Amino acid sequence: MSVPVEGVVKGDRADPSGRDRVRINDVAPRDGLQIEPVFVPTADKIALVDALSHAGYAKIEVTSFTSPKAIPALADAEAVMNGIERVAGVEYVVLVPNLRGMERAALCAPDEMNLVMSVSETHNRANLRMGREASFAQLADIVRALRGTAIRANVSLSTSFGCPMEGEVPEGEVFAWVSRFAGLGVAGISLCDTTGMASPAQVARMTARFLREHPGIMLTLHFHNTRGMGLANIVAAVQAGARRFDASLGGLGGCPYAPGATGNVCSEEVVHMLELMDFDTGVDLDLALAASARLPGLLGHDVPSQLLKAGPVTRLHPVPEGVVNVG
Amino acid sequence: MSVPVEGVVKGDRADPSGRDRVRINDVAPRDGLQIEPVFVPTADKIALVDALSHAGYAKIEVTSFTSPKAIPALADAEAVMNGIERVAGVEYVVLVPNLRGMERAALCAPDEMNLVMSVSETHNRANLRMGREASFAQLADIVRALRGTAIRANVSLSTSFGCPMEGEVPEGEVFAWVSRFAGLGVAGISLCDTTGMASPAQVARMTARFLREHPGIMLTLHFHNTRGMGLANIVAAVQAGARRFDASLGGLGGCPYAPGATGNVCSEEVVHMLELMDFDTGVDLDLALAASARLPGLLGHDVPSQLLKAGPVTRLHPVPEGVVNVG
Repeated sequence: MSVPVEGVVKGDRADPSGRDRVRINDVAPRDGLQIEPVFVPTADKIALVDALSHAGYAKIEVTSFTSPKAIPALADAEAVMNGIERVAGVEYVVLVPNLRGMERAALCAPDEMNLVMSVSETHNRANLRMGREASFAQLADIVRALRGTAIRANVSLSTSFGCPMEGEVPEGEVFAWVSRFAGLGVAGISLCDTTGMASPAQVARMTARFLREHPGIMLTLHFHNTRGMGLANIVAAVQAGARRFDASLGGLGGCPYAPGATGNVCSEEVVHMLELMDFDTGVDLDLALAASARLPGLLGHDVPSQLLKAGPVTRLHPVPEGVVNVG
Repeated sequence: MSVPVEGVVKGDRADPSGRDRVRINDVAPRDGLQIEPVFVPTADKIALVDALSHAGYAKIEVTSFTSPKAIPALADAEAVMNGIERVAGVEYVVLVPNLRGMERAALCAPDEMNLVMSVSETHNRANLRMGREASFAQLADIVRALRGTAIRANVSLSTSFGCPMEGEVPEGEVFAWVSRFAGLGVAGISLCDTTGMASPAQVARMTARFLREHPGIMLTLHFHNTRGMGLANIVAAVQAGARRFDASLGGLGGCPYAPGATGNVCSEEVVHMLELMDFDTGVDLDLALAASARLPGLLGHDVPSQLLKAGPVTRLHPVPEGVVNVG
C-alpha cells in the first residue's frame, strides 16, 4: 500500500530491505473457523487459504488435526491441506494436539506443526481436559518425533498474559514453561493472550525478556482484541523487538469465556497499521481486504474488522453535501 | 481498579503521586450525542454528565452552543449546563462556534470553551461551511474576548492527522495553525484525528514536536477508533509525553464520512488500559462502566465499547463445562 502521511515513510519503499520485516501468521482458517457454527465447505476453506497465500502472508495456520468429533468445523483437515496451492515463500502451519494428530498431519507435509497448552492449570484443564504436566508430556513426544525431520515444532502457550478463570498468571511461570520447551529444542514459541487480558507495558516487558533469554527461538505474539488493546499490544511488542505476530483475517475467532467479545486481532488492521509505521509485512492490503470482504458471505454474519468498514487511510471520500456537525 | 498482572504496578497505588497523572476529557455528552438521531431528554443528559463527574473524569465536554437548528440534539445546552452538578476538581467544557455562541455559553460559566476548525480546507468547508481563514478570524475573536476572563480557550484542530477528502495533511500545515493559535495565547490545543487516520509512528512524532515547540500550551490528543488504531495511538502519544486525551464513554461518536465505522476512542477502555500501564487517570472504572451500561437504553442501540462486553481483566469467569476448543 502507499502511505499518504508525510514523514511516516522512513525506508525506501522500492527496496524492501530498507524496512524491517514483520511476519504475520494468519490464523483465520484454523482459529477463526473452528468456533463458527456453520461448516464452511472444503472448497471455500481452500479458496480462503489460497487468497491469504496470494495476499502475501508469511505464514498461514491452515487447519487442525484434532479429533473431528471435538472440532467438527475442521473435520476436513486432510482435504484442505491437500487441496491448497503451496505458494513459494509462504509457510503452512497445522495445529496438532497429540501423536495421532501428528501422524495424520505429517502425511500432508506442513512446514510447521503448532502445539498448544495453557500456562494456567485451570485453563488447560477446561480447554484440553488434562493437567499441564500431561499436556507437556504429550507435546514433548511430538517435539521429539519431529526432531531431524523437515517439519518445525512451534508451541503456543495459551493464557500467557492472564487467565480468565485464575486471573494473574505469574510471569515466572510463563518463562518456566518457555524454558522447558526451549530445552526440548522447539523452533518457535508463541506467547498467546487467549482472552485479551494483555496490556502494553506487560507486553513490552515480556517480549524484551523473551528476546533476551531465548534469542535462538522464534517468538510469535498472539493477541486478542477482547478489551480493545489488540493493536496497542502489537505496537508495544514491535517496539520491544518482536517481529512475528498471529492475526486473523476479518478479526475472526474469539473465546467462549468472553461472550459477545471480538476475537483475534484483525490481520488486515495489523498489516495496515504496521505498514503505516514503515514495517514491511509483505502483504498486499487490497488483496487481504478483498479476501476479508468474502467472509461475511461465507459465515452468514458480519466480521469484527473495522478496516473492512472504513477502508484504508488511502481511500479518500467525496465531499458530502449537507454536513452540519462539527468536531 | 486493582491490577492483577505481576509487575505492571510500578508505582505505589496507595500514593497517587507515585504514578503519572493522565487527564481524560470525556466528550460523549457533546461529541457522542450530537450525531444521535434520538433527542436524549435533558434530565438524562444531566444524569450522564453527573455520572461522569462522580466517576472521576478530569474534564467533561458537556454540550455545544451551536445553533439549535444545526444540531437539534444539543438544543438544550443552557438547561444541561445549568442542571449539572459541579463536582470539585472536574472541569466543564462547552463547544462554542462563534461570538454569539460564546455569549450564550458565558452565562453558564464553563471552565473552558472549546473552539473547532479543520486543518484541511476541504474538511473545514464541508464541516463548517466556510474557509479556514474565515474560521480562524471567528475563533480569534472568541479567544480575544476570553482574555482576562476566568474561562480558558482551547482550540481543537480537526483532521490534524489526515483528511478523509484531501488525504495527507502536511505536518507543517498543522504546526502553522498551532503557531497561529499559540500566538493568540490559547491555553490549550487539541490535535484531532477526526476520522481515524492517525497511526502510531505519526502520533509519536507529532506529539514530541508539539511538546518541544509549545511546552506552555496544554496538548490534548483526540483519536477515533475508525481503523482499530485508537488505543495504539494513545500508547504512542503517552510514550511521547502526552498526558491529556479526549475519549468518549461507550465509544460514542463517529463520523459521517466513514459510515458504519466506530467513533471516538472508548473512554472506559482508555482508562482500563492506562491504569494497567500504571498511569493514574483518577477514574473509578466500575463507575465508568456502570454509566456506559446505561447508554444503550438511552440511545436505543448497542455501543462500540468492547470493555463493556468483556469486562475488565480483573473480572474473572467461572470454569465452564463442556469446553472442547483449543488455541
